[in-house]
Amino acid sequence: MQLLEKLHFNEKGLIPSVIVDIMDGKVLTLCYMNKEAVTKTIETSKVHVFRRSQNRLMIKGESSGHIQVVKRVFFDCEGNSLIFMVEQQVAACHAGYKTCFYREYFPKTDSIQIVENKIFDPDKVYNK
Amino acid sequence: MQLLEKLHFNEKGLIPSVIVDIMDGKVLTLCYMNKEAVTKTIETSKVHVFRRSQNRLMIKGESSGHIQVVKRVFFDCEGNSLIFMVEQQVAACHAGYKTCFYREYFPKTDSIQIVENKIFDPDKVYNK
Repeated sequence: MQLLEKLHFNEKGLIPSVIVDIMDGKVLTLCYMNKEAVTKTIETSKVHVFRRSQNRLMIKGESSGHIQVVKRVFFDCEGNSLIFMVEQQVAACHAGYKTCFYREYFPKTDSIQIVENKIFDPDKVYNK
Repeated sequence: MQLLEKLHFNEKGLIPSVIVDIMDGKVLTLCYMNKEAVTKTIETSKVHVFRRSQNRLMIKGESSGHIQVVKRVFFDCEGNSLIFMVEQQVAACHAGYKTCFYREYFPKTDSIQIVENKIFDPDKVYNK
């Protein structure tokens, strides 16, 4: 695969991937992939990640069903990161928001605000 | 600073930051910041990075003058990454493109294509 030849995985064998919603261009989440996850993501057109806390490969949305269907793939000038533009099912964040970046920091007032609305109730989705 | 309390820096003291163009919402680049770089970025409203290859703090655009003026700041659900929405001067990539993600990978044909136009000539900008 041409793509793999261009990429540099870090000393843990991982590369950061920015997942972008192809509908509105918003950054949904940042995840880590190992070589196997990149390959599987390309082959299946569904985002797979290397879950560092569990030390294993999994499809994004494994528990929730909120998968990400890959439409476009980009990589950076140094081969140190990827962008996957995806069709997001429901929402990307396990906290119930569309994106993981639902909190904004305001430097002038040194304050934090939630700037997205909840799309689903995590208790209902994850404790079925 | 409230923001710093929410962030988790990795074992090297770094956190990945996605830099997004506030004009068109495009991802410009992914960079790494240490605590000092985050603080300096917030205080000056100009993106500062920890350049891993040189092991030092620098303002993004130090050589080129292509600085990034911070307009909005977001952090993810787990405090493991940041988004800075910026006004980009000229272009973000040292290769002369607006974004570092100027190459697209096409899975069906296993091929790579440059999908942006060059905005500046790196030879002229960096060898002044």
